Amino acid sequence: MIGIKSIASYIPAGRIDNIAQAASFDRDEEFVLSKIGTPTLSVKDDTEETSDLCVAAVRNLLAKNPQLQLEDIDALVVVTQNGDAEGLPHTSAIVQHKTGLPTHIACFDVSLGCSGYVYGIYVLKGFMEATGLKNGILVTADPYSKIMDRSDRLTTLLFGDAATATWLGSDPVWTLGPARFGTDGTGADHLFVKDGFFHMNGRQVFNFASLKIIPHIQEVLALAGMDMEEVDAFCLHQGSGAIVDAIARRLGEGCSGKVIKDMFGAGNTVSSTIPLLMERYAFESDWRNLVMSGFGVGLSWGSAILFRGDR
Amino acid sequence: MIGIKSIASYIPAGRIDNIAQAASFDRDEEFVLSKIGTPTLSVKDDTEETSDLCVAAVRNLLAKNPQLQLEDIDALVVVTQNGDAEGLPHTSAIVQHKTGLPTHIACFDVSLGCSGYVYGIYVLKGFMEATGLKNGILVTADPYSKIMDRSDRLTTLLFGDAATATWLGSDPVWTLGPARFGTDGTGADHLFVKDGFFHMNGRQVFNFASLKIIPHIQEVLALAGMDMEEVDAFCLHQGSGAIVDAIARRLGEGCSGKVIKDMFGAGNTVSSTIPLLMERYAFESDWRNLVMSGFGVGLSWGSAILFRGDR
Repeated sequence: MIGIKSIASYIPAGRIDNIAQAASFDRDEEFVLSKIGTPTLSVKDDTEETSDLCVAAVRNLLAKNPQLQLEDIDALVVVTQNGDAEGLPHTSAIVQHKTGLPTHIACFDVSLGCSGYVYGIYVLKGFMEATGLKNGILVTADPYSKIMDRSDRLTTLLFGDAATATWLGSDPVWTLGPARFGTDGTGADHLFVKDGFFHMNGRQVFNFASLKIIPHIQEVLALAGMDMEEVDAFCLHQGSGAIVDAIARRLGEGCSGKVIKDMFGAGNTVSSTIPLLMERYAFESDWRNLVMSGFGVGLSWGSAILFRGDR
Repeated sequence: MIGIKSIASYIPAGRIDNIAQAASFDRDEEFVLSKIGTPTLSVKDDTEETSDLCVAAVRNLLAKNPQLQLEDIDALVVVTQNGDAEGLPHTSAIVQHKTGLPTHIACFDVSLGCSGYVYGIYVLKGFMEATGLKNGILVTADPYSKIMDRSDRLTTLLFGDAATATWLGSDPVWTLGPARFGTDGTGADHLFVKDGFFHMNGRQVFNFASLKIIPHIQEVLALAGMDMEEVDAFCLHQGSGAIVDAIARRLGEGCSGKVIKDMFGAGNTVSSTIPLLMERYAFESDWRNLVMSGFGVGLSWGSAILFRGDR
C-alpha cells in the first residue's frame, strides 16, 4: 500500500519583520502574534525561482533518505499556482531537469492552493497505484512573495515562502485513510490574482473555514467509523493564527489541545503548511492517527485521516 | 474497475482560413494540407473564457448521457495551461460553479500540454480509486488562441481551440491498461510562454517526437505482453500532419494504416486531440484495443494501451 514514507522541507532564509511591517499599518505586536500568528515571514531571494525552492526541498528529502536514489524516483508532482513560467511549461518538468531526475519519470503540476497537500497525496498515491509506479515525490511550493502587494495590509502580513517534499511509496510510516473533498466556485473571487497581484477577502475566507471544516472532518471520521475524541492530532492548514484558534475552539475542550499550531516563523505557506507540521511533529510522535484539513483558494477544501504504519 | 464510459467535446464555431493565413507567409495550400494538416483552425470567441469551453464540453457530455446527473459527479479535473485566471484560482473551481455541479465535488487542475490526456485519465482514475469516488469528469481545454502571436509563422498555422469532457466510472467502455510516462526538462524551452506569447522550436519538438514515441509505445506493449501487430488502432496526438505521418511511416507497413489522422478542421488542439479522435472513432469501431500517445510541452510524453470493455 502506497503511503507517506518521509517529508522534508526548505524554508528560504530571508525574513520580513512582521511586527515592523504591521506597525506601518498601525497594527500592534499583540495583533501580529495573536491574529496573524507569526512575528516574521519567510521570503525567497529574488534570484530563486519556484523550481529552485522545489529542488531544495527534494535535495533535503534525498539527504534525509540515502536509500532513495534519484534513478528510483518514477513520479514527481508539484502543487503550485505560482510556477516558474507563464502557464507553460509546468514547473515539475523544470524540477526534473534541475534535480537530475531520470527522464523515465512522470511529472505534472497540480493547480491548487491551501487545500493542495491533502488533495496532492491522494492524487499521487492514486496515480502511482493506477500505473504501477513505485517511488513518487509530492512537492508543494507556492511562493506568494511573487504576487504580493506590500501595500495591501489585508495580505502582506500573512504569507511566507516555503517548499516541502513528501516521499510516497510502499511500507509507509503513514497510511492514507478515508478522505473527502469539496469545491465552491462561487467563492472564486475571494482569493485571486489580477494584474500580477493577489487579492483576498479575508472575512469571507475566515467565515467559510470556520463553518465548513469541522463538519467536513466529522464526515471523514464517520467514513473511518471514528469519533472526534479518538483523533490523536489535528494538522490544520495554518491560514492564520486566528483561523486555527477559531477551529480549535469549536472542536471543544477534549480536542482543542490536539490542534497543532506552528507557522515556523514563516507565515501562511499555502500548500506547505500541513507537510511542515507533519515533518516536525508527526514522525517522532506517539500518535496512532492524525486528521489533516486544508482550505482556501477556489474555494476548495480537503480533509483526511492518516494512520500510523502500513495497513 | 474505473475506466472511460463516454466522451464529448466542444469545438468553437469560429474558423481561421489557414490557407489564406499561410499565403501571407508565402506558404502554399499543399504545405498547409500536407505539413500542417488542416485548412482551417478553430478559434474561440473573445468573450469565451477557458472555463466556458469546459462548461460547453461538460454540457455536451451530460446531454449525451442523461443517466449521469450533476449531483452524481464527485470529481472534476481540468487539464490546461491556459486557465481563466493568472495562476489562481484553478479553472476547475470556476467550472464547478458555472456548470452547477455540487459542492461535495473534488476539483483540481492538472498543468500539462499535449501529453495531458494520457496522464489525465490515469490521474483521475487513480484519484477516484484512492478516495472511493464514483463518477469523475476529465476536461481538456487549452485555448492557444489566448497566447498566439499571429505574426509568428512557426506557430500561428498550427493551433486551434477545443475542449473535451470524458466520463470516468465503473462498467467502462474502455479499460485503461498499462501506461508509461516520461519527462525531459532540458527541452523546457522548446515550448514556452513569455510576455504573454507562445514560442516553439518546431524542429526540436518534431525530432523528439519522431524518435521517442515508437520505442515508448513498444515499452507499453511489452508491459501488456503484446506485439505492435496486435494493436487495432493508434490514436496519436495530432501535433501536425507531418508528425503524425512521420510516426506512421516509422511504424511500418503493417501498422501505418491503423494510425488515425484527423484534425477536425480545428488544428492542434493540444490535450484535446486524442479525446477528439476517441470520441469520433473509438466507440463505434470494432477495435478491441487501442494505443494512445501524447507528447509535447515539458518536454513530456505519455503512452497507454486501452482495452474494450470491463476487465
